[in-house]
Amino acid sequence: MRENKYDDDKFFDAYSRMHRSIYGLGAAGEWHELKKLLPDFKGKRVLDIGCGYGWHCAYAAEQGASYVLGTDISEKMLDVARVKNAAHNIGYRQMAMEDIEFEEGSFDIVMSSLTLHYTPDYEDVCRRVYKSLTNGGSFVFSAEHPIFSARGSQDWIYDDGGKISYWPVDRYFDEGKRDTVFLGENVVKYHRTIAGYVRGLTEAGFVLGDIVEPKPSEDVLSNDPSMRDELRRPMMVLMVGRKG
Amino acid sequence: MRENKYDDDKFFDAYSRMHRSIYGLGAAGEWHELKKLLPDFKGKRVLDIGCGYGWHCAYAAEQGASYVLGTDISEKMLDVARVKNAAHNIGYRQMAMEDIEFEEGSFDIVMSSLTLHYTPDYEDVCRRVYKSLTNGGSFVFSAEHPIFSARGSQDWIYDDGGKISYWPVDRYFDEGKRDTVFLGENVVKYHRTIAGYVRGLTEAGFVLGDIVEPKPSEDVLSNDPSMRDELRRPMMVLMVGRKG
Repeated sequence: MRENKYDDDKFFDAYSRMHRSIYGLGAAGEWHELKKLLPDFKGKRVLDIGCGYGWHCAYAAEQGASYVLGTDISEKMLDVARVKNAAHNIGYRQMAMEDIEFEEGSFDIVMSSLTLHYTPDYEDVCRRVYKSLTNGGSFVFSAEHPIFSARGSQDWIYDDGGKISYWPVDRYFDEGKRDTVFLGENVVKYHRTIAGYVRGLTEAGFVLGDIVEPKPSEDVLSNDPSMRDELRRPMMVLMVGRKG
Repeated sequence: MRENKYDDDKFFDAYSRMHRSIYGLGAAGEWHELKKLLPDFKGKRVLDIGCGYGWHCAYAAEQGASYVLGTDISEKMLDVARVKNAAHNIGYRQMAMEDIEFEEGSFDIVMSSLTLHYTPDYEDVCRRVYKSLTNGGSFVFSAEHPIFSARGSQDWIYDDGGKISYWPVDRYFDEGKRDTVFLGENVVKYHRTIAGYVRGLTEAGFVLGDIVEPKPSEDVLSNDPSMRDELRRPMMVLMVGRKG
């Protein structure tokens, strides 16, 4: 069973109204940090898993990648990507992340932005990514932070006056399915621990590169004041695995 | 200013009544995981920072370490260590972790159990550890988990019936001092993020080895049922840094 919420009309519509959907990478609170973790794209073959509108693919191509393949389970997302972020050296292909399978060493860089928390098979995806990478290649991804995903409710606890009190964490060690509400819609996601994300990488053969917990950039904070709450708890985690 | 709460009589007394103080490593909920991360001690020179009662020093010596030095800021703790965990190849020395300074390459393994959250100078301690290690050496430590330390209150939120509702997280990105209550006493600790712990290691020159979030072992859970709550949120994080 592959989660394909993004082909749901109502959800797709809500997603298309998000700042990051309209304005691209500059409006994504974590982009300034993710960018720093990405290797030099010059002459590199790049795979973007869960490419969505294709913003990261376009960035890789602009930075000199020789070829970029964006995959996504959602045809609706890819339809937008093919219009918004087309280039002669970018290809888009409909493919669930659980099904990616390429010749060994097909890519130098694999990236994935906020996609891996939709799969129950993270460990297997890591193995597939590892196989698809050339020696010395890198896997850079962002996922929802376990603090954010643990309890499943994905909302703050408020005081009687409606002000935020704190973020609730529960069931941290209980990895697996969570029924969440995202953009007003019911969305199934999968929680795992920080150590779980790390173990998926190392058990697939990766050497752990870096771990970053991004705060929204000053730019994003001034354009979207609701992001200020994100200074109180992490929403995402970025990880780098290197193939030795 | 070095935190030396363990020389406070009342606190020392409360600490001495903890399961782990009476029964040693087997009663420490994280020991089964920490043990797996420790390198082979055979013939190795070992430093234990914040050695307390000396349980870890004794373990390293039993496992064949050629020499073990345990350091701690608290003379009271060292007095116990010198009785409970003495051996011909274990030395104990009073020294704050912020002051450790040894010839380059003096040790093959540096370990530290639940000590680093007492220092405001974690990054500097990492640099000192790095310098003291030989090439290929390892630094293995446990510290309070950022989920546990972020808000500072270090207690659950309970419902009206007194049952646990969830664990509150707040001020996650706000690294620094926290006034906490531990064993009924006011204790100053220092919160940092997961990424902060990682950065301290990598900026000192370490390669990131592993990250583990331990759950209490089945053994510990059956002897100390209060530990069951720890299955709902992480209390500690274990990290390994390797000197290339």
